[in-house]
Amino acid sequence: MAAEPTPIRRPRADQARQVADVMRHQILARTFESTLPTESALAAEFDVSRNTIRDALALLKDQGLIDRAPKVGTHVAQRRYDHGLDALLGLKETLKGHGDVRNEVRAAMRITAPPAVARRLQLSPGEQAVYIERLRYLGDIPLSLDLTYLSPDIGDELITRDLESNDVFALIEQISGGPLGSADLALEAITADAHSAATLEVPEGAALLMMERLTKLEDGRPVDLEYIRMRGDRITMRGSLTRDPLNWEIT
Amino acid sequence: MAAEPTPIRRPRADQARQVADVMRHQILARTFESTLPTESALAAEFDVSRNTIRDALALLKDQGLIDRAPKVGTHVAQRRYDHGLDALLGLKETLKGHGDVRNEVRAAMRITAPPAVARRLQLSPGEQAVYIERLRYLGDIPLSLDLTYLSPDIGDELITRDLESNDVFALIEQISGGPLGSADLALEAITADAHSAATLEVPEGAALLMMERLTKLEDGRPVDLEYIRMRGDRITMRGSLTRDPLNWEIT
Repeated sequence: MAAEPTPIRRPRADQARQVADVMRHQILARTFESTLPTESALAAEFDVSRNTIRDALALLKDQGLIDRAPKVGTHVAQRRYDHGLDALLGLKETLKGHGDVRNEVRAAMRITAPPAVARRLQLSPGEQAVYIERLRYLGDIPLSLDLTYLSPDIGDELITRDLESNDVFALIEQISGGPLGSADLALEAITADAHSAATLEVPEGAALLMMERLTKLEDGRPVDLEYIRMRGDRITMRGSLTRDPLNWEIT
Repeated sequence: MAAEPTPIRRPRADQARQVADVMRHQILARTFESTLPTESALAAEFDVSRNTIRDALALLKDQGLIDRAPKVGTHVAQRRYDHGLDALLGLKETLKGHGDVRNEVRAAMRITAPPAVARRLQLSPGEQAVYIERLRYLGDIPLSLDLTYLSPDIGDELITRDLESNDVFALIEQISGGPLGSADLALEAITADAHSAATLEVPEGAALLMMERLTKLEDGRPVDLEYIRMRGDRITMRGSLTRDPLNWEIT
């Protein structure tokens, strides 16, 4: 049975969100030049009122995606960068071609691993680990703040290397002499506390992608536990997922 | 050359964040019972001052992970749910065992696909698509707000089905007669605008995970374009990534 059009009169706020979401993708995919089409052109394109378009543009402005000014029009505000979710990549690798990744090393030292960290890195209670804290820039823009715990056998050598211009992944592979294996990761959206916000040069309360990642060598041994805060206004995680046919058989 | 311990005196805010990140994982992994250890026990465990522990607990409280009250102590605040990032799963599938997923259907109708949507679903300009908007609950808690565009050949039949208790993925597979293929997804952290916040029952400015996902049938034809806002305080995306040995050879 074919569905009939359901001519529900939807709240303007719902319509504005609907339009904003599609435009958000267009902005990220750089469908527009730096200037967006006029309100009337957008109203025609989305088949909604100009007021709805204005509300949608206000949402995109609040999310930092566009700038609007009278007479000047509506412009794409700033570049965003894609971080690959399909393979395990360091920031420098994933941003290759976009510019130089430079790390400000805020800490690089041996510590006694807190029990929770020791367990995840499979260290003995009280064993030492190496702690590194880096603020990672692309050009002049801080993109992420990374807190890293390393197994001492890798970490002791690693902190003698050039941490300012290398990904930790590349250094681990140089030191261990083989490729990394896999990583378990957890991704969350959080708001920036005052101190993290100041460090990442975003307003307090800005949205951050928080990634916790435990990376293992090829033999499965975990060596690198990281807590990574990425600026939500600058980073999009992108990947593809495949359907497990088992799910189909179950449903 | 082995690294020497570097006895830098680090700012308390940096130390507090460092502790909070490890505790955050412990809370999500349910390492603690509902009550957290005392401040002194935590100070000993992390080898920091009680003031640093207090600051770390304040960060976790601001992120909604714990509640604190004088005399009562510190408690884990609320359940979070893991959404799988390893295979393509609907919300109901991924939360199986945690409770009933129920969808409040806010819209289900034919629309003229905006050009940007038509292009992604490989529809002709001006062709109609089916639009569905659902607020998705686990029990009484709204978890996500999903805006869905479907190809008309699938969507017309799909909106005659029970949308309140089924994942769209399961319905597409029933209608198309085969398993889904793969999906391209983009994940971002955004803050909730006033209207989305009210709908998802979170404060304005709360962190949301925003997922844009284009799902294809097994033959590669895109049929389902979704814009999904997930509550940052309730959903963690989890998966694992494998290192491509090519990256090793390049570095």
